[in-house]
Order: sequence, then C-alpha cells, then structure tokens
Amino acid sequence: MNRTAFFNLSYGVYLCTAWDEGRPVGCVANSAMQVTSDPATIAVSLNRVNHTHKCVADTGYFAVCVLGEKVDPKLIGTFGFRTSRETDKFEETPYSVRDRMPIPDGCICYFVCKVVDRMETSSHTVFLGEVQAAEVLRSDRPMTYAYYHKVLKGKTSVNAPTFVEEKKTESGARYVCKVCGYEYDGEIPFEDLPEDWVCPLCGMPKSEFEKIG
Amino acid sequence: MNRTAFFNLSYGVYLCTAWDEGRPVGCVANSAMQVTSDPATIAVSLNRVNHTHKCVADTGYFAVCVLGEKVDPKLIGTFGFRTSRETDKFEETPYSVRDRMPIPDGCICYFVCKVVDRMETSSHTVFLGEVQAAEVLRSDRPMTYAYYHKVLKGKTSVNAPTFVEEKKTESGARYVCKVCGYEYDGEIPFEDLPEDWVCPLCGMPKSEFEKIG
Repeated sequence: MNRTAFFNLSYGVYLCTAWDEGRPVGCVANSAMQVTSDPATIAVSLNRVNHTHKCVADTGYFAVCVLGEKVDPKLIGTFGFRTSRETDKFEETPYSVRDRMPIPDGCICYFVCKVVDRMETSSHTVFLGEVQAAEVLRSDRPMTYAYYHKVLKGKTSVNAPTFVEEKKTESGARYVCKVCGYEYDGEIPFEDLPEDWVCPLCGMPKSEFEKIG
Repeated sequence: MNRTAFFNLSYGVYLCTAWDEGRPVGCVANSAMQVTSDPATIAVSLNRVNHTHKCVADTGYFAVCVLGEKVDPKLIGTFGFRTSRETDKFEETPYSVRDRMPIPDGCICYFVCKVVDRMETSSHTVFLGEVQAAEVLRSDRPMTYAYYHKVLKGKTSVNAPTFVEEKKTESGARYVCKVCGYEYDGEIPFEDLPEDWVCPLCGMPKSEFEKIG
C-alpha cells in the first residue's frame, strides 16, 4: 500500500465545537462532508480520545465552523494541538453564541447540527448531524487542507484521521514545535531567532521547539 | 438557513467504481473522506438511486479514484451525469483492473476498499471501507470541487449530496447541456458555433443543449 496516496484526498479545515456542561469546547476536524441535501446532513469524524467527542456524544449537538485562508493560524494551533480537558480554548478565542452553539469569530460560516446517527470505527466516530442552522459570517476563500500544509506549513495532530508518521530526513538539524508540530523553515538559523520569537502556528515560545534529525 | 454556507465545504472529485456481475460500473463522488489511519478506512457517500450504490452493496467492494486537474473533463461527464444502468461508462474509458478493481487510466491514484460498515440516511448510504490497496498512478494536482466549478464550469448532478437548485438569472439567453448541466460561456454566440461542436464536459452534440432564461 502506498501511504502517500492518501495525500491526494481533498479536505477543508474546520473547527468542530460543542458544549461541555455550559463550557464551550472544540477541536480541529478535516474529515467533514455533506451527506444529504434534503434534509441537509453533515458527517464529521472525531477521534474518541478527543474531549470534544465526549461532549458531542453527551449533548447530541455539534457545530462545524469553516476556516478561511485569512484565518489567524493561532486558532488552528489552539484548537488542533491542545485538549479541552486541560485548556479553555475559548478563553483566548473571541466567539459568540449563535443558534445556541459557540462559534469562533474568525470562521467564514457555520453549521449547527443535531446528531441523528453515528458509526463507530476502530478509533473514530462518524457523527451524522442534521443541519438545524447555517449562516455565513464573512467572505474569505475556504482553507483547504492542502493550503494549510503548503502555505502555512501546518502539521497534523496524531489524533487526526489523516495523520501519517513522518520520516526523518538525513539532512541537517530541524526544529519542530512540540505543541503543534510546526517545523521552522525560515532563512535565519533557528538558534539566531530572538528569544521572544513565538511559533507562528500555535504561539508557543522558542523554548517549546525541539531539535530533531 | 443560508444554503450558500454549504459552498464553503471543501471536497475533492472522485470516481467510485465497482463490479456489476463482472461488468465495471462507477459514478462521480465528492463526499469521500478518510476516517481512520490504522487500519486505514475511507467513508464514501452514495445516493441509493445510483446503480453503483447497488453494486457496492451487493459485492461489498468499491474503489475510490482521485481525479486531477489535468483530467479529461469528459470523464466527469461520463461518470457524473449518466447511469450505468443504461450506459457502459467503461466502454469509452480506458482502464485496467488493479488490485481486482476497475481503475480508469486518467486518475491520479486509487484506493481499493472492502465495506466494513454502512450508515443509512434519507437518500444516501455512507459506506465505510477498509483500504486493502492504495497506489499512485500519476502526478497531478488533485482536483477540488471548487476548481471543478470555477475552472471547468462544472455543474452538480441532482443525485449528489451537494446539489442545490440554481436560480435562473434575468439576463439574456443561456445554453445549458441537458446531459451534464454544463453552461456554455464562450465568446462566440452559441448559435454561431459549428454543428460538430460538442459539450466540452460530456461530449454531447450541440443539439443536446437547451436554451433557458
């Protein structure tokens, strides 16, 4: 099996949000798709280890929020590489409650979905949600997963369906953010970056970078 | 509900193929996504009215073939807007049998999947397939659904999850292919096109175009 074939599947970049006993929670999701048009339903795949998974299962509701190319990459760092069990992701994320769900201000549009079915797999649950509300908040080109990887140099959480373990290169040292997986590739040598430099993806300080390879 | 919000979900453009008692069949699918990475599974949503749906359900196997931007658009016309009940779509499509499944030559890569679960919705079945084989056949940028609409001016089959009825414009006459929905927008007036001109998307003759609006 050629694992690189999977890189040819196309996805968007979404935040899946939910309520945890009145507290807003959420995580990054790539695997989301419309399944029917009338009534409109959306399927989203969430890893069972994600706290958001538990909250969607418990409450029966989730929102899918579409991120655009102009989104602040920190939003992906916050929602994609930390857990709502330990972090209040919404503390540093401006949001409002729309159609009864927490919707981050930075997203293009959102879908509020009621869980009507679910399918279990080895690691993920595919939740099928009937769309109760859908609104557009701003005009921006939807970010694709390919754009995220190529332009933002973003990495993939080990909990994502699309995770593939990267092979280490044999060339010189590489510096990778331990929180979000962002790999530094600037022109200035990493060691020469100022001490207040932060990861452009998740905002973590230079000290959170690990030298590998 | 703002239905235009759905246009912000990102998809690829795929052919889903299967066997119909030894005869290769297939249809266009946009709603396909990886669900787990180990073992690798892919979920694909197929309308129950599609003949390919019946064949996947009967045989328990399907292949997802990724189309690239350089693909011959006729492939989309053939597989997206006709039915395998009445047409042998593979008659005019060069293909080979790989890992026991019919794989059109024009695709970038393919995944051969064994159905391990299914979820029923009002109109579509979400088939969960465990990937048995995955190979890359050529290097080309995977076509996104957005590219298909913007660059190829492609339309959506009424059987697709992503179908939204279009509103007619109030401007002058428009010429739309009755087979694939392609709307002519060339600089030469449609009436002045030569009689042997064919639809660039599905290859139907000029006589299959309908004047609307």
